[in-house]
Amino acid sequence: MVILGLDPGIATVGFGVVNSERDRQTVLRYGTITTPAGLPLSTRLLQIATDLEELVSGFRPDEIAVEELFFNTNVKTGIAVAHGRGVLLMTSEKCGIPVFEYTPLQVKQAVVGYGRAEKQQVMEMTRRLLQLPQIPRPDDAADALAVALCHARSATSLLRRETRLPSDRT
Amino acid sequence: MVILGLDPGIATVGFGVVNSERDRQTVLRYGTITTPAGLPLSTRLLQIATDLEELVSGFRPDEIAVEELFFNTNVKTGIAVAHGRGVLLMTSEKCGIPVFEYTPLQVKQAVVGYGRAEKQQVMEMTRRLLQLPQIPRPDDAADALAVALCHARSATSLLRRETRLPSDRT
Repeated sequence: MVILGLDPGIATVGFGVVNSERDRQTVLRYGTITTPAGLPLSTRLLQIATDLEELVSGFRPDEIAVEELFFNTNVKTGIAVAHGRGVLLMTSEKCGIPVFEYTPLQVKQAVVGYGRAEKQQVMEMTRRLLQLPQIPRPDDAADALAVALCHARSATSLLRRETRLPSDRT
Repeated sequence: MVILGLDPGIATVGFGVVNSERDRQTVLRYGTITTPAGLPLSTRLLQIATDLEELVSGFRPDEIAVEELFFNTNVKTGIAVAHGRGVLLMTSEKCGIPVFEYTPLQVKQAVVGYGRAEKQQVMEMTRRLLQLPQIPRPDDAADALAVALCHARSATSLLRRETRLPSDRT
């Protein structure tokens, strides 16, 4: 099963494509969708949608996992990122890919086994679980890989995998 | 010039289609796009995008005006609405329609002539300016008409209208 993890944003959307087979997950690709600050918001949002559609048609993920917003910090930033997140969810749905949402707490729990883990611990565990030589850069891409891992290791994903029939893929 | 005004939301997106000729604006249509609460957010967002595309192909607006979020109240609600607003901006851009954004203050200023006007005053002035027998219902539709009016009466719109050449419409 191929999982596309997404870390929402406007200037930078992190993405991570992971192949998940039973207890082993490997990286197919990771990186970022970036949009220039000078453009109108509507233009940047369309660019995000177009780039996501390209990613989906390139890697044909079975499922998409998107991180939920942690809006404890800057409300204005949260509102901006939510615009981008709405476009990610909508575009995933339009592509016909099942979408799953995970809170930062769930990601930490699934990847580190501890919901209050530090960012650095999440990154290091993401690296180890994906057998990578180094922590992926930039952070947005590493976050996206962690969300994909979280989905791969979550009950929802396991359940879906076990109950999936060959005809479900058509 | 046909202007489509939009009042963002998830459960209810208000829309108002206004024909604007010099100093006179008339209503072509108003109403709401609604999505059921029980559906996943991604499904509701796609429904909003699809319904907006239908509105655009039905009325072929020259320009779209979208209200900005006033997030003084509930952050959680603001974040949810921002998801929907992102989809509205992106879909407008995808349809190739120029998009303009106005703050609630700008809308009040343009419609009532006073930035701190009460909601009821904005509604009543919207009714009068559009020569309607009653205040449009629901509120989301009235808000959307007010945004469309704001754009029709704004400097940006006037400037664009004056500088538009016949060939710009092709």
